[in-house]
Amino acid sequence: MRYELYYWPEIQGRGEFVRLALEEAAADYLDVARMPARRGMGMPALLRFLESRRVERPPFAPPFLKAGRLVVGQTANILLFLGPRLGLAPLAEADRVWAHQLELTIADFVSEIHDTHHPVAVSLHYEQQKREAKRRASDFVQSRLCKFLDYFEGVLERNPRRGGWMVGGRISYVDLSIFQVMAGLRYAFPRAMSQVEAGYPRLHALHASVAARRNVAAYLASPRRLPFSEADIWRNYPELDAAARVR
Amino acid sequence: MRYELYYWPEIQGRGEFVRLALEEAAADYLDVARMPARRGMGMPALLRFLESRRVERPPFAPPFLKAGRLVVGQTANILLFLGPRLGLAPLAEADRVWAHQLELTIADFVSEIHDTHHPVAVSLHYEQQKREAKRRASDFVQSRLCKFLDYFEGVLERNPRRGGWMVGGRISYVDLSIFQVMAGLRYAFPRAMSQVEAGYPRLHALHASVAARRNVAAYLASPRRLPFSEADIWRNYPELDAAARVR
Repeated sequence: MRYELYYWPEIQGRGEFVRLALEEAAADYLDVARMPARRGMGMPALLRFLESRRVERPPFAPPFLKAGRLVVGQTANILLFLGPRLGLAPLAEADRVWAHQLELTIADFVSEIHDTHHPVAVSLHYEQQKREAKRRASDFVQSRLCKFLDYFEGVLERNPRRGGWMVGGRISYVDLSIFQVMAGLRYAFPRAMSQVEAGYPRLHALHASVAARRNVAAYLASPRRLPFSEADIWRNYPELDAAARVR
Repeated sequence: MRYELYYWPEIQGRGEFVRLALEEAAADYLDVARMPARRGMGMPALLRFLESRRVERPPFAPPFLKAGRLVVGQTANILLFLGPRLGLAPLAEADRVWAHQLELTIADFVSEIHDTHHPVAVSLHYEQQKREAKRRASDFVQSRLCKFLDYFEGVLERNPRRGGWMVGGRISYVDLSIFQVMAGLRYAFPRAMSQVEAGYPRLHALHASVAARRNVAAYLASPRRLPFSEADIWRNYPELDAAARVR
């Protein structure tokens, strides 16, 4: 099966959680919007799904994945669908429900991280909501960052399978997503993270384990891995990182 | 199977999406935190799951559902789990993926609705972020409200099964969630909704169809249905509704 991923071509964004799963599994996939429009791909192919009145089940927003005739939207839903097909999800139903629950909690965390620089409106530029962003980022670092990190560290600590993975005894898409969240937080909040990260040895180790996976390492070193930037979810605005006073 | 729902006892909140599914299906369930603490229930039972270090797979936040030995967290994940068990989800995998995708888009909408009154921090009172809330609510009504409503109306319009339901030819948990979103929006933004709702005849009809279901109607008329309030996701703050200028 050749999968087609549709996501904005110039950012990691939420599409990166799907890219990491496809790359770790060495899946056959096309990153459609990054391919030439003259070959029927590129942004026109992406916009067709969002804007055409003829698509019976349109996604609300990228990313979405085409798998044969099926179009799957919503990042966590894509991973729920792909997980078992890529060997990146546990087999038992109770474990799959747990993995998906964790992925949805990661999605909530990612939304809160995004909103630190866009607390008023996604339709406005950062500069138009900078004052509000400082207030929000300060609260995020003081009361939300460690709440989420405490939770995920606790999940690793309580996993009876002691392999350092989030769910059961082997890698799943949840671990890849945690890697991405840790990488993004270090980029966006280097000061705050340097102050707290020693308190999260298991998350630290998980990030390193994922980065060292053969396929992930090759991906990260390739041009397929887009750089972090200030057009993305994770933005390095020193004034937001500096506004923070960590507990 | 007797289900145990754990959610804050005094608000509809995100728990209401689960309550509506359980009620429509006439499922055997306990709303645990609303029952007496002296019977081992109430808030202490809820907090035990959130705070105990002995829970191997803790939820991040309510609502969560206990089904036998399994504890399922995250609203959309609970509905994904309950849907087929309550006869409120389609059977085919492609349809289930689509229903869940819609539910996750509803969850995104609900988060944006919540943040209109809490754009800076959930840890602060509304009064401490009222100025930011006015800006956010104004943008929400101008550019987000109709974007989501257009999308869901379009889903109804494109459903080839013409029964007025969101997915396929019969009711699913997605319809119950749309009912709750419409009811909440009418409560929180009566002025804005009165200006735009005529443009959404299918959503209007779906709200009415769900409200008229025998089990739902009995639930809504019962004391089990908590009233809307200003401690909830949907808050009637006239200054936020008035700040709006609809396209």
